[in-house]
Amino acid sequence: MSVPFTEDELIARLFTPLAGPGGLALRDDAALISPPPGTQIVATTDAIVAGVHFFADDPPRCVARKALRTNLSDLAAKGADPHGFLLTLALPAEVSAQWLEDFAAALGEDCRAYAIDLLGGDTVRTPGPAMISITALGLAPTGKMVPRTGARPGDALYVSGTIGDAAIGLKLRADAAFLSVLPTRARNELVSRYLEPRPRNALAATMRAHASGGMDVSDGFIGDIAKMLAASGVSARINLADVPLSAAARAAIALDASLFDAALVGGDDYELLASVPAGSTAAFEAGAGAAHVDVSRVGWVVAGPAPPEFIGADGALRKFARGSFSHF
Amino acid sequence: MSVPFTEDELIARLFTPLAGPGGLALRDDAALISPPPGTQIVATTDAIVAGVHFFADDPPRCVARKALRTNLSDLAAKGADPHGFLLTLALPAEVSAQWLEDFAAALGEDCRAYAIDLLGGDTVRTPGPAMISITALGLAPTGKMVPRTGARPGDALYVSGTIGDAAIGLKLRADAAFLSVLPTRARNELVSRYLEPRPRNALAATMRAHASGGMDVSDGFIGDIAKMLAASGVSARINLADVPLSAAARAAIALDASLFDAALVGGDDYELLASVPAGSTAAFEAGAGAAHVDVSRVGWVVAGPAPPEFIGADGALRKFARGSFSHF
Repeated sequence: MSVPFTEDELIARLFTPLAGPGGLALRDDAALISPPPGTQIVATTDAIVAGVHFFADDPPRCVARKALRTNLSDLAAKGADPHGFLLTLALPAEVSAQWLEDFAAALGEDCRAYAIDLLGGDTVRTPGPAMISITALGLAPTGKMVPRTGARPGDALYVSGTIGDAAIGLKLRADAAFLSVLPTRARNELVSRYLEPRPRNALAATMRAHASGGMDVSDGFIGDIAKMLAASGVSARINLADVPLSAAARAAIALDASLFDAALVGGDDYELLASVPAGSTAAFEAGAGAAHVDVSRVGWVVAGPAPPEFIGADGALRKFARGSFSHF
Repeated sequence: MSVPFTEDELIARLFTPLAGPGGLALRDDAALISPPPGTQIVATTDAIVAGVHFFADDPPRCVARKALRTNLSDLAAKGADPHGFLLTLALPAEVSAQWLEDFAAALGEDCRAYAIDLLGGDTVRTPGPAMISITALGLAPTGKMVPRTGARPGDALYVSGTIGDAAIGLKLRADAAFLSVLPTRARNELVSRYLEPRPRNALAATMRAHASGGMDVSDGFIGDIAKMLAASGVSARINLADVPLSAAARAAIALDASLFDAALVGGDDYELLASVPAGSTAAFEAGAGAAHVDVSRVGWVVAGPAPPEFIGADGALRKFARGSFSHF
């Protein structure tokens, strides 16, 4: 074994500092969670595998952030505030002490930034690629979790931030020539959006106050919208011209028009999709503004259950052969 | 991709039937958990990797049981009753439909047997070995979780069931010649104990009612006792002649005396270790009897913090070079 720590040393040195009170200093077999009266626990699990969800040579700090933030994004979409998480770390023998230290350091920074504590976990050796699986627990006032099934005809559909940056960033990483044509700032922004999700936990309180339904956009905007509407038994009309794009994405699309579709179906956005009753749109927008999160109305929910209609800038219906990206 | 289902099909067909009410039919991004008033949530995570914690050709039903039951054992040790679990399934491309169906079927049987529901999870592809990580959530009355740190001088130390069967079973699997000498029934029993943990959830109520401290024996009896006593800041005198052995283990040890030490340090027991105040031993034993779980008193807690003393059948102190097994 060339893993540079024993499991106990690894835990004591790198991870115990991240433990919250419920983590019992990571010295017990289990964590203890006491939801405050009037709250429910919202639980979600997301795993990432080297060579599938990230590159084996991605910086360990980025890997840590991606592992935790994909889960934080699910909590935000449900209107839940981060509480704690359990970490499964499967490590190949060749992982270095430096890799682990950087991984744990970035995880600790995110614990502070997102107000979430490490509660426990398991560290195992694997003959395969590194894999990180996180179960995140959040808290929401009882009855206030935002369901995927809540969109109703007449609701407005909103998306936070900008769509497609990560998908274009991923394509750019594989195409060095194209990368060199794009201005440095745009390039860095797009690649960074792929490497490090920026979950919208700042929007959680606004989601639970005003959204009828929600999910996070992680597998592709087109496919995820279709998933949420199907779960709600409704349809929608979406204006693709209203899908928010960053200046960097616009710059890339100006050089290669096919990147627009890549942006729409590519995934790894970690933005929030929300259905908001017509009477609540002003309050939703005000809440988002107060939270310093941009939100854009991209369409309206209509009676279902037909698939949503995506309308191009020319007014014509667009079809997508493949609405989302699956790592499976 | 030769995985025989899409992720959505896999979930809908095999796993949605295992979902409890909090799992929201596995159609949302997260699960919702409402602990009854007066309870706390006890959370634990354990992962198993093909080629490390199980053999890649182990029956999928056994793999499912091992993945869930290692977690159930931790809940039992804490005096918590199973509530729900989140499942991360990392699958190599070559996994067959039959493997997945068998895996899910056995998981469903265990959900019923142990009164635990699937709450959610994530299914990912891996270029490496199959890996299953489970986060199990249990419920315990507020303040009643049995801590690893609770052993006090004067407490009796108990262990449930029998020790060493799985460790001997694992050795037997690797030694076909020896296996053939042992009577079939003993052989099957020992190998079965390795393949399928039998967690002591029936003892959970007795643990929380009467044990001052507890943990499960999963990494080796000698090492796990030392861990619990160190966490409690105490020591102990353990009589090795009192360590409970099954008839099958005795038969194997009669053929190869070195298997006694293997039994003591080998791990995969998934029995419970409990410290019980002297005034509560009768009640603890009665509770275990009512739950149909054998418990054996193996020693007494004494003031610490010296390492525990292990006393052989000849009255002499025994030292163990390696008290426990680490998969890490």
